[in-house]
Amino acid sequence: MSQTIDRTSKVPAAQQEKPVVDVAALGERLMGRWAAERRASRELAATPAMQRIPGQTMAEHRERVLEQLKILVEHKSVHKAFPKSVGGLEDAGGNIAQFEELLLADPSLQIKSGVQWGLFGAAVMHLGTEKHHTKWLPGIMSLEIPGAFAMTETGHGSDVSAVGTTATYDESTQEFVIHTPFRAAWKDYLGNAALHGEAAVVFAQLITKGVNHGVHAFYVDIRDKDKNFLPGIGGEDDGLKGGLNGIDNGRLHFTNVRIPRENLLNRYGDVAEDGTYSSPIASPGRRFFTMLGTLVQGRVSLDGASVVASKLALTIALSYGSQRRQFTAASDTEEEVILDYQRHQRRLLPRLAETYAMSFAHDVFLEKFDAVFTGRADTDEDRQDLETLAAALKPLSTWAALDILQEAREACGGNGFLAENRLTLLRADMDIYATFEGDNNVLLQLVAKRLLTDYSKKFAGADAGALAQYVAGQVGDATLNRTGLRKLAQSIVDFGSTARSVGYVRDADAQRQLLTDRVQSMIAEIAGRLRDAGKLPKMEAAQLFNSNQNALIEAARAHGELLQWEAFTEAVEGIEDAGTRQVLTWLRDLFGLGLIEKHAAWYLIHGRISAQRAQAITSYIDDRLLPRLREYALPLVAAFELSPELIGAPIALGAEKERQDEAMLYYREQRESGTAPIAEKAPAKPVRA
Amino acid sequence: MSQTIDRTSKVPAAQQEKPVVDVAALGERLMGRWAAERRASRELAATPAMQRIPGQTMAEHRERVLEQLKILVEHKSVHKAFPKSVGGLEDAGGNIAQFEELLLADPSLQIKSGVQWGLFGAAVMHLGTEKHHTKWLPGIMSLEIPGAFAMTETGHGSDVSAVGTTATYDESTQEFVIHTPFRAAWKDYLGNAALHGEAAVVFAQLITKGVNHGVHAFYVDIRDKDKNFLPGIGGEDDGLKGGLNGIDNGRLHFTNVRIPRENLLNRYGDVAEDGTYSSPIASPGRRFFTMLGTLVQGRVSLDGASVVASKLALTIALSYGSQRRQFTAASDTEEEVILDYQRHQRRLLPRLAETYAMSFAHDVFLEKFDAVFTGRADTDEDRQDLETLAAALKPLSTWAALDILQEAREACGGNGFLAENRLTLLRADMDIYATFEGDNNVLLQLVAKRLLTDYSKKFAGADAGALAQYVAGQVGDATLNRTGLRKLAQSIVDFGSTARSVGYVRDADAQRQLLTDRVQSMIAEIAGRLRDAGKLPKMEAAQLFNSNQNALIEAARAHGELLQWEAFTEAVEGIEDAGTRQVLTWLRDLFGLGLIEKHAAWYLIHGRISAQRAQAITSYIDDRLLPRLREYALPLVAAFELSPELIGAPIALGAEKERQDEAMLYYREQRESGTAPIAEKAPAKPVRA
Repeated sequence: MSQTIDRTSKVPAAQQEKPVVDVAALGERLMGRWAAERRASRELAATPAMQRIPGQTMAEHRERVLEQLKILVEHKSVHKAFPKSVGGLEDAGGNIAQFEELLLADPSLQIKSGVQWGLFGAAVMHLGTEKHHTKWLPGIMSLEIPGAFAMTETGHGSDVSAVGTTATYDESTQEFVIHTPFRAAWKDYLGNAALHGEAAVVFAQLITKGVNHGVHAFYVDIRDKDKNFLPGIGGEDDGLKGGLNGIDNGRLHFTNVRIPRENLLNRYGDVAEDGTYSSPIASPGRRFFTMLGTLVQGRVSLDGASVVASKLALTIALSYGSQRRQFTAASDTEEEVILDYQRHQRRLLPRLAETYAMSFAHDVFLEKFDAVFTGRADTDEDRQDLETLAAALKPLSTWAALDILQEAREACGGNGFLAENRLTLLRADMDIYATFEGDNNVLLQLVAKRLLTDYSKKFAGADAGALAQYVAGQVGDATLNRTGLRKLAQSIVDFGSTARSVGYVRDADAQRQLLTDRVQSMIAEIAGRLRDAGKLPKMEAAQLFNSNQNALIEAARAHGELLQWEAFTEAVEGIEDAGTRQVLTWLRDLFGLGLIEKHAAWYLIHGRISAQRAQAITSYIDDRLLPRLREYALPLVAAFELSPELIGAPIALGAEKERQDEAMLYYREQRESGTAPIAEKAPAKPVRA
Repeated sequence: MSQTIDRTSKVPAAQQEKPVVDVAALGERLMGRWAAERRASRELAATPAMQRIPGQTMAEHRERVLEQLKILVEHKSVHKAFPKSVGGLEDAGGNIAQFEELLLADPSLQIKSGVQWGLFGAAVMHLGTEKHHTKWLPGIMSLEIPGAFAMTETGHGSDVSAVGTTATYDESTQEFVIHTPFRAAWKDYLGNAALHGEAAVVFAQLITKGVNHGVHAFYVDIRDKDKNFLPGIGGEDDGLKGGLNGIDNGRLHFTNVRIPRENLLNRYGDVAEDGTYSSPIASPGRRFFTMLGTLVQGRVSLDGASVVASKLALTIALSYGSQRRQFTAASDTEEEVILDYQRHQRRLLPRLAETYAMSFAHDVFLEKFDAVFTGRADTDEDRQDLETLAAALKPLSTWAALDILQEAREACGGNGFLAENRLTLLRADMDIYATFEGDNNVLLQLVAKRLLTDYSKKFAGADAGALAQYVAGQVGDATLNRTGLRKLAQSIVDFGSTARSVGYVRDADAQRQLLTDRVQSMIAEIAGRLRDAGKLPKMEAAQLFNSNQNALIEAARAHGELLQWEAFTEAVEGIEDAGTRQVLTWLRDLFGLGLIEKHAAWYLIHGRISAQRAQAITSYIDDRLLPRLREYALPLVAAFELSPELIGAPIALGAEKERQDEAMLYYREQRESGTAPIAEKAPAKPVRA
């Protein structure tokens, strides 16, 4: 099977006036700061032992993934994030980068690793203190202690502060009593809980001296070495799921299980022998969010894994689309390559642009994460920014990955449905990425609240008039921009030539202005509607807020899109090779103009673009950007640097081309030898039967 | 487990001024003309023997579905469509209706039945003649002859006219020689081909006397009773797929396989002993499309099955959404039911409206199908209308089902991901519905071509000026409407009150006008751009057409949406009960206004609605329609009449409510008994740690 993506591919010499993409340099840029970690992880992911075997039963798949975790340990792939005191490297960013790439082998492997080291291990690390690290981290790192992260309950996923499990301190024995008071408080959907877990970090309401101090984390042994539940502990297997069946998700419940006082992971809250509670963070609310904030790495790695999956999906679909032929629209003998059809370009190329945007945005995100968790930039504000970034990007990228996998599947037709071509199984696995580590819709509300808070800080005490003025005047506001921008006023009535209409929005500053303006205006409008919420009774305030919930989520999404666009633009500006920069500028334009086209109704309603300009944007995408970028589809996916072993899908590795070539040769030989049957002549005049 | 949907549910007495839905009558209306067939099929689908067992291996699942086909035979569920001459009932509509409902048990069962009786059997029936019926249909009906429908090849799916398989007539032996000339011409993705099929209807280029008469169908035995391939025939198993793994899809190839001349299914084309070809249809193109047209029932049943799946998905998600609670926004003690959140309503209620529209549109479609295939209304034009209906509705409903299943999955959170709650497995199975029986994007192009043809017939010989005038004047055109309508002119500048803005579009005639106008204008615009295509060389014409491909597909989609809206409106007008009619009118408005909102950019660009009106539509949906319809969510899904056995998903059958009630009782008792721990007091003044 021949490899169809040429790493050194350049546009043919005959077209040398056209820009040329430096695939190798672009590939390096896409790999980003942790290129070495990513490449090492891909090398491992390319080995058969780490890859999924489609069609395994759930039981077989679970055992296989457990064995793969042991291989990761042997390869010393799991120590990076942990403290140097226990043999780790304290390399937060490199650790995440390498785990993201494991998705290429099998998402179950990525997620089960994430459960063991990114959730269970990270909770001990971030919520525990030195004594906990010394005691448990070595066993966690070596997989001697497989563990579960017991936060979510059947009854509470999004609202973790309301979990039902209690941890009540008993002064007389200096123990916590972990207890599940009702069925909805069973811990649920926990990886490692159904079979392999021997311990768990259990999140429970900490109660001492009759006071509930809110949710804290406790280290609890749950099974003995023979995998039998310890006394007081029970559980169930979650059974078959829509995907990720290499992970043994399950439920746990606790009946007055006693654990030593020291098993409270006490970095942010402790209980003295006499039951006195203390915390370095006075506000219970802030304490809770600080604890949860240490676990943001799950969101980082889902965002990164979604980027990886999107790259793989588009590598498959664009490779196939460049070889598959169907219908003879333009020739009597040779069929069209399907990527030459406009619709096919419309389906895949904007998604390629989105993938680039997601990839560059993820770099910014991972960089921020690394800065916070290595302590380079770790103020309260840094942490809040990181959380907002996580809450904005993870929903967009996880949804995008599902959309891209689906479109890629459909673009590969029946071939796309075969398990061997990977798209369907990957999509099934990644479905739940939209829900875990924070439901996407809930996360976007967190973003919106942050945007509203920032907005109201800026306008503290402002009356309705000032707000209205802000809304009216913000066309010229550029607080989110790094450069001064000309006003958009003329756009409202620009009935000039189409070329002029397009010329304007092709400009990066204009795209930035339009995207920024939309976020600001949406938030300002909502803030205006919510301005009296504070004065209302709780129920009415809730109703008012609820009647703006959909608009809030849309504003948060617009904010995330702007972040992606900014990251893409910054990356393009940093590229030195002129040809590559030109092609990526087109791709960035496709992303930016695609967003403006998608939200054209908003821009038209708010007078930000004219009807003529809105139409010009669509024409520019269809008639210019798509045909131009179609020529670079293969170099642009080649820069993803996915080896044949990582791509896996036969249809992306030459099988289709081989078949097409053979068929074309057959017909050509028939024509040339004169052995082709002649076509039945149509009757001179169509006769109706 | 309690049943959560009350078949007799009415809105509580306290709210009697509000309209009441007559659930039973609405259910009867939704069941439609073939209610008896649907109910009988559902009864069978509700039995454990017919239902899918999640987690079975591919091999187990395939065997199980084969056994289920035998149960269908025993229940005399497969004879309906076949000729009376062989013991059938010639009940085309009733037959399809019953097969659609089998999806509730397992989509693999629906599709494998469809392969055996709807494709393989139907090809013998529609493309063969009396002698073929007598010889093979009894064995096909009894499953004595399991068979494959060998049309698609690895290299040709959408463009069936270009399949590579040949059937060359040999006068000397009076046989056809079936041959596969290259790998791309292997028959592929065929149900029954990997294991069970003993015969196949093979589509091949009919060549006699050196002339290729185009694709015809041939009956070919492929395996003996021990399931060994006959000489000259080989194949492969397609292996694991993204879904539908209860079907043994596979590949077949033929090496000079000789079959008797009589095995040509000769209704539309025959070869005499001496090799002379004859056909009742002189034009090879029309002949081909007539043959394919007889096989439209696949599209009908995928459309219907998508409606059934959407009903099931929304029954599950809306039942769960009415019981699941999360966050205490409006109360200090009781959490909110998640369907009370605006976003949750936005996610599910427009999809409920869409499902109603799809359901009523499917009734129209099935009625038309029945009229054509029972001969009640079977002119050329009827058949063309049926095919256009099929090509417009099947893409919309199969895509909608995937979208609805996914949104329902996400709306059920982690619970939605468990296989037992069905949404993920159903979605995985139905993924390929977007591709088979005609790729959705290809089908929509057929619709667009029909719309263009109709348009150009109307304007045959018209010059560019006449076309332009049409575009300008069509605001008042009502050719697609059944009623005269007032002009929309005032809408362009209606800066009146919001109430007036909304009042106008709430009107059914205005919705019809806006939706109709959009289809007509889009087609007129494209026709204008394509008007010189006929004069261009083939390649340039193809390029011109290609540069309008995306717009064509969007126009076709708009046409399909209009058909759905018309069907919904007609159904609402036929409902006698005032309360039901009122609620369904709101639901229809949500569908219609939702379409206008979705396409608001087009309406704004083309001056059909003002900015103010566009905003008023969104406000009307958010502030009026969603809160109103939220109260009727359960009666509206109750009218789908899905029994607990058919719903299957535990979260939709009371498990969630039971858990929520238990938890609420626990906390209430704690509060009342004074044993609840008190919450930690927040510090008087927030202190930053």
